[in-house]
Formats: sequence, structure tokens, C-alpha cells
Amino acid sequence: MKAVGVVVEYNPFHNGHFYHISQSKSNSNADVVIAVMSGHFLQRGEPALLDKWHRTKMALNNGVDIVIELPYVFCTGYATAFAEGAIQLLEAIGCTHFAFGSEEGSIQPFLNTFHILKKHEEQYNALIKHYVTTGISYPQSLYKAYEELRQMDVNSTIDLSQPNNILGYHYIEAAKRLNLQIEPMTIPRIKAGFHDDIDNNSTIASATGIRKAIFEQQTLQEIKQFLPPASFTLLKNWQSEYGSFIHWETLWPYLRFAILRNTPEQLSRFADVSEGIEFALIKAAKKSDSFNQFMNQIKSKRYTWTRLQRIVTHIYTGITKDQLHESTKPSYIRLLGMSQNGQAYLSKHKKQFQLPLISRVASTKDPMLLLDIRATDMYALGVEYSSGKQMASDYQTPPIRL
Amino acid sequence: MKAVGVVVEYNPFHNGHFYHISQSKSNSNADVVIAVMSGHFLQRGEPALLDKWHRTKMALNNGVDIVIELPYVFCTGYATAFAEGAIQLLEAIGCTHFAFGSEEGSIQPFLNTFHILKKHEEQYNALIKHYVTTGISYPQSLYKAYEELRQMDVNSTIDLSQPNNILGYHYIEAAKRLNLQIEPMTIPRIKAGFHDDIDNNSTIASATGIRKAIFEQQTLQEIKQFLPPASFTLLKNWQSEYGSFIHWETLWPYLRFAILRNTPEQLSRFADVSEGIEFALIKAAKKSDSFNQFMNQIKSKRYTWTRLQRIVTHIYTGITKDQLHESTKPSYIRLLGMSQNGQAYLSKHKKQFQLPLISRVASTKDPMLLLDIRATDMYALGVEYSSGKQMASDYQTPPIRL
Repeated sequence: MKAVGVVVEYNPFHNGHFYHISQSKSNSNADVVIAVMSGHFLQRGEPALLDKWHRTKMALNNGVDIVIELPYVFCTGYATAFAEGAIQLLEAIGCTHFAFGSEEGSIQPFLNTFHILKKHEEQYNALIKHYVTTGISYPQSLYKAYEELRQMDVNSTIDLSQPNNILGYHYIEAAKRLNLQIEPMTIPRIKAGFHDDIDNNSTIASATGIRKAIFEQQTLQEIKQFLPPASFTLLKNWQSEYGSFIHWETLWPYLRFAILRNTPEQLSRFADVSEGIEFALIKAAKKSDSFNQFMNQIKSKRYTWTRLQRIVTHIYTGITKDQLHESTKPSYIRLLGMSQNGQAYLSKHKKQFQLPLISRVASTKDPMLLLDIRATDMYALGVEYSSGKQMASDYQTPPIRL
Repeated sequence: MKAVGVVVEYNPFHNGHFYHISQSKSNSNADVVIAVMSGHFLQRGEPALLDKWHRTKMALNNGVDIVIELPYVFCTGYATAFAEGAIQLLEAIGCTHFAFGSEEGSIQPFLNTFHILKKHEEQYNALIKHYVTTGISYPQSLYKAYEELRQMDVNSTIDLSQPNNILGYHYIEAAKRLNLQIEPMTIPRIKAGFHDDIDNNSTIASATGIRKAIFEQQTLQEIKQFLPPASFTLLKNWQSEYGSFIHWETLWPYLRFAILRNTPEQLSRFADVSEGIEFALIKAAKKSDSFNQFMNQIKSKRYTWTRLQRIVTHIYTGITKDQLHESTKPSYIRLLGMSQNGQAYLSKHKKQFQLPLISRVASTKDPMLLLDIRATDMYALGVEYSSGKQMASDYQTPPIRL
């Protein structure tokens, strides 16, 4: 059986994701689709709207055959770490292809970009360094350096101002650098810009737009047209069970508590807290009644909203620098759910997997897995606090079966 | 002007306290009464019903002239540290006498007890050691050792099974050991055993009984007869402002969060967490929806309710072993409030005080004071979380003036 891999957050699962899965499957001629999905905290440093098991059900109900978890160390990391973790897991579970969505839409310009940057590596790094010293943010410096190099080459290259192109490039780069066998493919994203508001004349909206509509509207009806029916039902179920969807405002009282319970020196022990940002965090937390108010006091060119969200994620979960050491290789494949088709694939191939497959978490001492469990516990506390209802934990929850 | 000192928590201020103050003043012929009062966390490891400024107002409205704060390091410590801190502060602010309430009621037996224990110190310590090794708790071992020694002496000694006698003994012991000038007095406690329920045919009830009635009844009317009118009004005001009085159940969601956000190893860094209790704390916190449920899972002969409460106080406030090093001497006198009479005393005598008098907290690096400020912040977070109302902080609040 042939497998194609996808890297996802499904926050929440929408029609665009459905399209991506069917295209990935048909273009790769795969028998099964395997999604490596972030757990409870996402790449832009946000808690997921609903827990990983609900999001796994969304995936399995819409064409994904196997969902595995991207460990906390990768899913809350910068793009390089995120891509490295995800791609290695897809290779480890035997995928022959992986397919990512991009604004670009065809794979050759990605490969050209990789070769150009490789060929001119020294010059590229010198340019980045130059721009950083002028006070421009690191991502912006990367972009400007790239644009200069790009002019010098005749081959078609990708536009790295587009967020999905950037992430796609990191996948390619990680796969090449790590000499993986897995073959990259890209699917053009349809309509819906990344940060767009929802458009009622379409059935496609970005997850960002959908989340915005969820928190701004009192009803889920507004977003119904953008979601497959099973995904919509799961959102409804979550809402009736836990009252509301999870975002930083839900967790703000705890986050504030977690920040103020430290001296600046103690706060600087948490992952990603550096350069004195701890003083600003404490000062702002004292004065803020909401997450939004807090963030607006500290965000800057240097400390972008996303960077700050990653920092507070680690403070919220209580994960220190010592614990989040640079992990470049996953140590396990954590199974979150499978269809019957997915189960057949696992039975047939699991002996060839390059990493142990974990279906149930018993006692573990794997530090990478312990962080996933911690993230679930801390997410659950926030949800329970708002709903008064006990949530499932990693120890109690077997893989979802469809 | 002559001053008598009292050591108090006023949680809340009741008729027994009023009686104690008037007796202390008349028996010592003092012009002013100075109370050294615990801040937001009390000696038995509990958060105060209402904040230190409300409790200061209760005191000033009922005959106390000056309220100063017993620093966090002392007020959450064991009896020895508590007594040492309190007595030294009263000496430092120039009190000629201090008066404590006791079941015993006269001072000579306290002095006799001190001399006997001093005289037979080696034997006493050997007896304690003996009892501890038989598995009896430390306080129980002290008591049994003392009862043995006591039989051997003809002088009248105190009954150390009585809680106020115990605390009184610690004051005497601290004052003697530290060679203080301040002279001890004791006032007999009237009626109301320490842990008694309230009795409707009396106007005296213990603070413990009053707190119990507050949390068990929906109305404050039940306890009105046990409080001076000003004290009752302040309780009413607090209730209408913050909705409820503070106890561990109010703070439980945060305490649980604070416990679960740590590995056992990380948890063991907090003050008083030792001997592997960190594992039991995490295990119980995972399974408990309330503080009561949590405590009942871990309390034992060795880990009494009070000892556990002190442990979780430090976890809640985030104060580590490094921060709560053994402090035996206060470094400042923190003024919480004063009457006009108190103000006159301060103007006249403050140049002779043995420690700096702090009326307003500006920026400070004094580690002892920083812990008091932290304790206020963490207490306030719990109150705000339950009321949605912003509380005063140590930086913003000037001394209360009557």
C-alpha cells in the first residue's frame, strides 16, 4: 500500500483541507493519506480551538486514514524545526510522497529556489546578516536577502512573501538536507488568502478567517458553508460540551498567574524567554485584564505577535529551556487515530517503520513524549476552568477508530 | 509615650480580639497599642478571608493604634520563626511590653516552663528524638517529651496541649533567646475554645468558628453578634465588593494549575516541598476538582493538614527554597495603618526605631519585602479571578489612616 503524507493543524478542518486531501491522494496515486498533526499548541503559538482528539475525528471523517501527532517540541517551534519534525515523521511511517499546499502551486520553482540558495549560500548569509544589523526583523531580512539573489538567476523561483510558500520551502529544505527518500509534491491553494475574512459567496475560507468568525459571531451558522458536514457537527458537539472554543483569552487568567508567579530571573528559565523580554512580560501582565491588552503592550517589530505567542505558550505550559533543548529528530510515532484503511496500512507496514509506533501511552520516560502529555494537561486545565468538565488525558485516550 | 505590642492575624477581627486589646492596654498602662499582623497568607498556611488593608481597618477601628506587617517569611513559617519575627518587630518599634492571649492566663508558669526546658535541654532533646523515631509527628513528640519533664518539677508550668499556650511559649522563648528588652504579659482567653463552633448564647467565638460559619452559611447575620460593629461593616463591604471571602477553594483552580505545571523535580524547588511529597501532590492534583478533595488524598500523620497548607502556600505564591532562606531577623518595619494617636507615637519615636520604617513601597530590592509584594500579587490574582475586580497592590496603597 502506498501512502502520501500531509502536515496539518486542522484548526478547524474546512473545505480547503478536504480539497487538499483529495488532490494529494489522486496526484500521488496513494492508497492512504497520513496526516501529521500538531497537538494542542500550534505553530503560531496558539492553543487549538478544540482538542487533538476532536480534530483527529474531523480528519478521519474527511478522507484522512491515519493521524499521528507532531510532538510539542516541533509543533511550537520555528519553521525549520516544525518542518524537520513533520517530514521525518512522514518518512518514518513509510510515506512515499508528501503534499503541501502553496500559493505557488507547482513543485519545480521550489526546487529551483532550494538550488539557488544552496549555490549562493555564503552570499545569502552575508546579506541576511547585513539586513539584520540594520534593525530589520529576522524573517524580513531573510526575505530581502532572497529577493536580491533571486534577481540573479534565470530559473523560475517562488515568491517567499507568501506564508504557504515559506512553509513549503522549509519542508523541501529539510527533506533535502536530511537526505530523505520522501518525494515532495505541492497542491495549489484555491482562493481564500491566508488572513482573509470569510466570503459568503464562496465555500472556501482560511482557518484564520473561520476562527475570526467563530470568536466574533455568537453562532456557528456563519461558518457552516466552509466546513464539511462532519467537521461542522464536531464543532457543534464541542461547543455544547465545553461551552466555548479555546483561544488565549480563555487561558488568560492562568497565563497571567503563570507570568506573575515568577521573578524576572525565574521567568527567563522558560523556553524562548530571552533578551530581557521577561521584564516587559511581567510589567504588561500586571496591567492587563485581557490577553489582547497584554499583547498590545509588548508587541514590536522585534517581538512580533507570533514570536510573543510562542514565548507565552512555553510559559503557560511551564516548559523550560532545559526541557526544550534542540531536538532535531522525533523519537516515536504517536498514533492519534485511524480509519479501517489506515489500520490495514499499519498492520501491513508497521514492522518497517523507522520509529516505534505508540498507540497507548502507558508510563513513559521519553522526555519528548512527556512534553506532549504536559501540553495536554495544561490545555485541559484551561478548558476545564472554563467549562467545569473533566477532559481526557493522553494516558486515558486510545486512538480514535473510524 | 509607652507602647504595648500584640501579634495578630485578625481573620477576621472579633469581640475576643477587642477584649484582648483593651486588657493589654490597661494591664500595661500603655498609651498606644501596636499590632504586628500577618499579610495575606497566615500561619496555618491559609489565605486570609480578606486583604491586609481591610483587616488593618478592622484593627484601627477597634483600638489598635498602629498596624505593621509581619513579613511573609515569618507569617507562613513554623511557630519558632513566626514568634521570632513578630517579637523582634515589636521590640524594634519600641514596645515596652507585649501581650499574648493564652489558655493559661498568667505569665509565671510560662517563665517556669522556659526555665525547666532550658535546664533539662539535653534530656528534652533526647526524649523528642526518641518519640520521633517511634513514628509520632514532630509536634506530638515535643508534647510528650515536655509532659515527661514537667512531672519532675515542683513549679507550676503551662499545658502545652493548648494552641495559644504553645504560641505564647514561642514568644517567650524567642524573647529570652534573643535577649530582648520587651516584657511579656499574658491575657487569659475568655471562653470559646480554639476550634469550637460558634455558640449563639455568647458574644465570643473563635476566628476558626467564625470562618466556618461564614463558609457554611449564606448570610453574615449568623456571626454578627461575635464582631464589633466596624468589623462587621468591613466584612459586609468586602462581600459586596468582591463577592466572596477568600479561602483555598477560591484559589484552587490556580493552585492546581501551579502544581501540574511542574515536573516532580521542578516542584521540589518550592519552599517546604521535600521527602518526595511532590509526587503525591501531582497525583492528587490531577484527580481533584476541589481543594478539600485534594487535601484528603494526601493528608497523613506525617503530613498534617497545616503542614500541607504551608507547602501549597509556597507553591501557590511560587516561592522557592532559594528565596525562603532561613531569615531570623526582619529588615524593615512595614507600616500598614495608624490612628492619630499612632501617628503621634511614630512622629515622636521613629528616630529611635531599630529598623527602617517603610510607609510607602517604592522600588525595592530587599528580598524580604519583595516576597511580601509577591504574596499580595498572588493573593490579588485569586480574588480578581473570582470577582473580576482589580485589587490594590503594595506599590499603590498608602498606610490606612483613621
